[in-house]
Amino acid sequence: MPSSTIETFPNPRPERDYRIAINCPEFTSVCPKTGLPDFGEIRITYVPDAQCIELKSLKYYLIEFRNRGIFYEHATNQILDDLVQAIHPRRMTVVGDFSVRGGIKTTVTAEYQET
Amino acid sequence: MPSSTIETFPNPRPERDYRIAINCPEFTSVCPKTGLPDFGEIRITYVPDAQCIELKSLKYYLIEFRNRGIFYEHATNQILDDLVQAIHPRRMTVVGDFSVRGGIKTTVTAEYQET
Amino acid sequence: MPSSTIETFPNPRPERDYRIAINCPEFTSVCPKTGLPDFGEIRITYVPDAQCIELKSLKYYLIEFRNRGIFYEHATNQILDDLVQAIHPRRMTVVGDFSVRGGIKTTVTAEYQET
Amino acid sequence: MPSSTIETFPNPRPERDYRIAINCPEFTSVCPKTGLPDFGEIRITYVPDAQCIELKSLKYYLIEFRNRGIFYEHATNQILDDLVQAIHPRRMTVVGDFSVRGGIKTTVTAEYQET
Amino acid sequence: MPSSTIETFPNPRPERDYRIAINCPEFTSVCPKTGLPDFGEIRITYVPDAQCIELKSLKYYLIEFRNRGIFYEHATNQILDDLVQAIHPRRMTVVGDFSVRGGIKTTVTAEYQET
Amino acid sequence: MPSSTIETFPNPRPERDYRIAINCPEFTSVCPKTGLPDFGEIRITYVPDAQCIELKSLKYYLIEFRNRGIFYEHATNQILDDLVQAIHPRRMTVVGDFSVRGGIKTTVTAEYQET
Amino acid sequence: MPSSTIETFPNPRPERDYRIAINCPEFTSVCPKTGLPDFGEIRITYVPDAQCIELKSLKYYLIEFRNRGIFYEHATNQILDDLVQAIHPRRMTVVGDFSVRGGIKTTVTAEYQET
Amino acid sequence: MPSSTIETFPNPRPERDYRIAINCPEFTSVCPKTGLPDFGEIRITYVPDAQCIELKSLKYYLIEFRNRGIFYEHATNQILDDLVQAIHPRRMTVVGDFSVRGGIKTTVTAEYQET
Amino acid sequence: MPSSTIETFPNPRPERDYRIAINCPEFTSVCPKTGLPDFGEIRITYVPDAQCIELKSLKYYLIEFRNRGIFYEHATNQILDDLVQAIHPRRMTVVGDFSVRGGIKTTVTAEYQET
Amino acid sequence: MPSSTIETFPNPRPERDYRIAINCPEFTSVCPKTGLPDFGEIRITYVPDAQCIELKSLKYYLIEFRNRGIFYEHATNQILDDLVQAIHPRRMTVVGDFSVRGGIKTTVTAEYQET
Repeated sequence: MPSSTIETFPNPRPERDYRIAINCPEFTSVCPKTGLPDFGEIRITYVPDAQCIELKSLKYYLIEFRNRGIFYEHATNQILDDLVQAIHPRRMTVVGDFSVRGGIKTTVTAEYQET
Repeated sequence: MPSSTIETFPNPRPERDYRIAINCPEFTSVCPKTGLPDFGEIRITYVPDAQCIELKSLKYYLIEFRNRGIFYEHATNQILDDLVQAIHPRRMTVVGDFSVRGGIKTTVTAEYQET
Repeated sequence: MPSSTIETFPNPRPERDYRIAINCPEFTSVCPKTGLPDFGEIRITYVPDAQCIELKSLKYYLIEFRNRGIFYEHATNQILDDLVQAIHPRRMTVVGDFSVRGGIKTTVTAEYQET
Repeated sequence: MPSSTIETFPNPRPERDYRIAINCPEFTSVCPKTGLPDFGEIRITYVPDAQCIELKSLKYYLIEFRNRGIFYEHATNQILDDLVQAIHPRRMTVVGDFSVRGGIKTTVTAEYQET
Repeated sequence: MPSSTIETFPNPRPERDYRIAINCPEFTSVCPKTGLPDFGEIRITYVPDAQCIELKSLKYYLIEFRNRGIFYEHATNQILDDLVQAIHPRRMTVVGDFSVRGGIKTTVTAEYQET
Repeated sequence: MPSSTIETFPNPRPERDYRIAINCPEFTSVCPKTGLPDFGEIRITYVPDAQCIELKSLKYYLIEFRNRGIFYEHATNQILDDLVQAIHPRRMTVVGDFSVRGGIKTTVTAEYQET
Repeated sequence: MPSSTIETFPNPRPERDYRIAINCPEFTSVCPKTGLPDFGEIRITYVPDAQCIELKSLKYYLIEFRNRGIFYEHATNQILDDLVQAIHPRRMTVVGDFSVRGGIKTTVTAEYQET
Repeated sequence: MPSSTIETFPNPRPERDYRIAINCPEFTSVCPKTGLPDFGEIRITYVPDAQCIELKSLKYYLIEFRNRGIFYEHATNQILDDLVQAIHPRRMTVVGDFSVRGGIKTTVTAEYQET
Repeated sequence: MPSSTIETFPNPRPERDYRIAINCPEFTSVCPKTGLPDFGEIRITYVPDAQCIELKSLKYYLIEFRNRGIFYEHATNQILDDLVQAIHPRRMTVVGDFSVRGGIKTTVTAEYQET
Repeated sequence: MPSSTIETFPNPRPERDYRIAINCPEFTSVCPKTGLPDFGEIRITYVPDAQCIELKSLKYYLIEFRNRGIFYEHATNQILDDLVQAIHPRRMTVVGDFSVRGGIKTTVTAEYQET
């Protein structure tokens, strides 16, 4: 599990529901079966509650996947879980859009809804 | 019917409804009327329940259509049926997007909803 | 009215509601006012009931418009009527997307819903 | 106000609700403040009732704006009013999509719903 | 806070709900942490009530951000607040679409609904 | 052979070598082997000498191919020959860019150079 | 002939051959045969000698074509002649890229080379 | 080696050097190392001498690669050799543009010049 | 004139002629006539001799234009002069691609060749 | 320096000059100054002599850069040197097309010509 902390800053308009979308096209991890690198884009959309994601710490958090072996489905859900735990958003979606392997392209979409 | 087995792996987050989209642009089969090759893209979207589709076995499954004579409508529905039987997803859509024949382009979209 | 018969074949999965989309970018007819050729794309989407449209006969059916004088609005509705009569689909949409005339572009969209 | 008459022709399928979309990318008028020309695209979508818009007369109607001073918001609403009065459609949308001025681009969308 | 006044002009069709969309691709401000310039596009959509936004004054209002240090989330919400206060629209959305920083792209979307 | 005459008008700057490019995306003829319609775009580029091509007569000239059976290679060369004979240009290129048949797309390019 | 003067300003680097490209997508004139408006884009590229083209005066110069009847070939050559006379460039190209008429699109390219 | 014969037809303008470009986006063969299918587009450009390539026979010729094991570099050069032998063109280029394998995309370009 | 120094680092392969292309889409300056901001993209291509441009110092150098009044033609030539002086390249091209003003778009291209 | 060997296979047509183009969009290394990852696309074009590059070994060779600190200019020239040494091509070009850093994008192009 990434040891890097996702830092946060106070939401400047907590009284309003608004959306923040963050695209990280430079995601890479390692396939646990072949040991070969995987590449993809992570897209995060959320409605902040008390806290927003600080972008530089998000960058360092995602870089920690660089040499980890992890499957697409697992990585996408893990990122959602870690970000939800860090900022407790009202809503959040994480999309992992991974590059072609064996002529096949995979996209994983996971959502969180505050209950 | 393809004899290749679609392998599965356990869903890493069965407690969450999330979507997996898989694009296979290198699909080819044979037109049963003319014996000539057909080309297309198969797009699969699903919400996994207990099992996910293992991509390498999906690739081998789709390659089995390479020298089979089958119509567009039949192929798309057959793939949906086979995948539903293999992983019992919560929801699944299969789109067969076939290339131009006689100046006409055809796309077939079939959906499954767990009941 | 076109004399060419739209041929059909039995729907391979009548127990399932699924969509078939057919794009015919090579449609041409004649403007009844000027006698000059019109060009366009006919896009058909439908949910089959007992029968599907056979593509080769659809091609011959559309070629019959080649030297007929007919307005855009009429052609699009006529194609919808003829196809509905031929296969009695559960739902069908016909879009006629015609090329620029006098700096103006027209698209006509007609829908049928089984009642 | 344009003096040109918008001509109409009888709707060939009044018993069916269907949509007609008309794009006019060659619209130009004059800015009332600066006297300089404005350029834009007018997009009209409607569901006809008894009458349809004759395209050639629409072209002449829009050309009448060529040397008129009128603001974007006014022009879009005026075109909607004039077309509604001419053909009494079941529904109509007019979009005025105007080119960049001072680094800023404006689009105005007005809708009419038969009551 | 910008000292420039957002000017308004009377809505030419207050009796009709219609949308005005304004794109301002030439927005720039300064990052309060690094002091380096940020670039982005501000997209405003609204349904006017009694007043519309005068575009030239909007341009001058946005230029005031040029040398201000402000975060993305704050800037987008601030613009929404200032425009709502200036014209009291029926509905308004402001999107701040900012360019890549550290390989990460951010978009902020804030909405106002007259209550 | 088309019986329609290609009309000409005097070159307004015969003392200068300049290029005129004309795109005709609405070309259609008939395949002499199958009797089925072919579609394509004819692109003409030339340096005029004493005469230029009058566009309306070019349009009528190209419409004459509508119901003629002719191969791609022949049509492209024939159009070049007819236009060269009509206006005796300093240089001319005719490109016939034809749509997909049997999964194969063909483009024919023929050039004339005044000697 | 346009009565508006093309203003100039001194070339800031006359000792260097460098290129200036100017795109004017909002050109409109009137067809002398039909009296209907024509639309197009004028693209100017030149190597300045002692003088450069002042953009605001170029804009006013091009607006003078708005209500003039002139053919494409003539307009493009006329603009080249007028600009050459105004600034005596080392090299200049003028492209007139006009919109579709009767399904046919025309582009005229004229060049000047200081001798 | 393909046993299918590439048929030819007489060049309709042997006295003129002109180019024919043929795109075949539906090429597939088998990787001799893995036994898995490869996909690509074959693009042929040539100047005919006495003979042109008949398209239907070209299609059947290319289909013969469908179940053959052959490397990219070999396939592209083989197609060039076979076509040169069949029609003895004045010039010919064959491009094999193959789809991504292992995150790497390959294009092979081979040319023939009559000597 | 910018006071920021363009830093350099030693060319790692001075024995080879190779090209470095640098795109800076976030350039902004001020129009000396109107005092309003201008936006553009600066594109630099060069063949290094002994020194290469250090990117971070280039960024700070370009930021110095942010509040300077300067015309397009002047800015492009100035950047070329300053970079040539800093690294004495074998060849260099600077393109200033500026955004639309008054419906007109300007691009300036200046080149340096070591003599 | 990468320890992985670039494997080769014999050129199947050494008697013909032909080009092979290889695109590797999934290149990543580490910035030696910041320690942060860099991303880019490596594009290789060459005319083989006796040997061709085996793609799988090329992939492993490029993966060795994943955790190395190296500047753009150095990496591109290094790859060219290593590939030239491995296969002694007649000609080779290597392009390193790197992603945006600090709002600036860099592309490095190095060429080798057999002497």
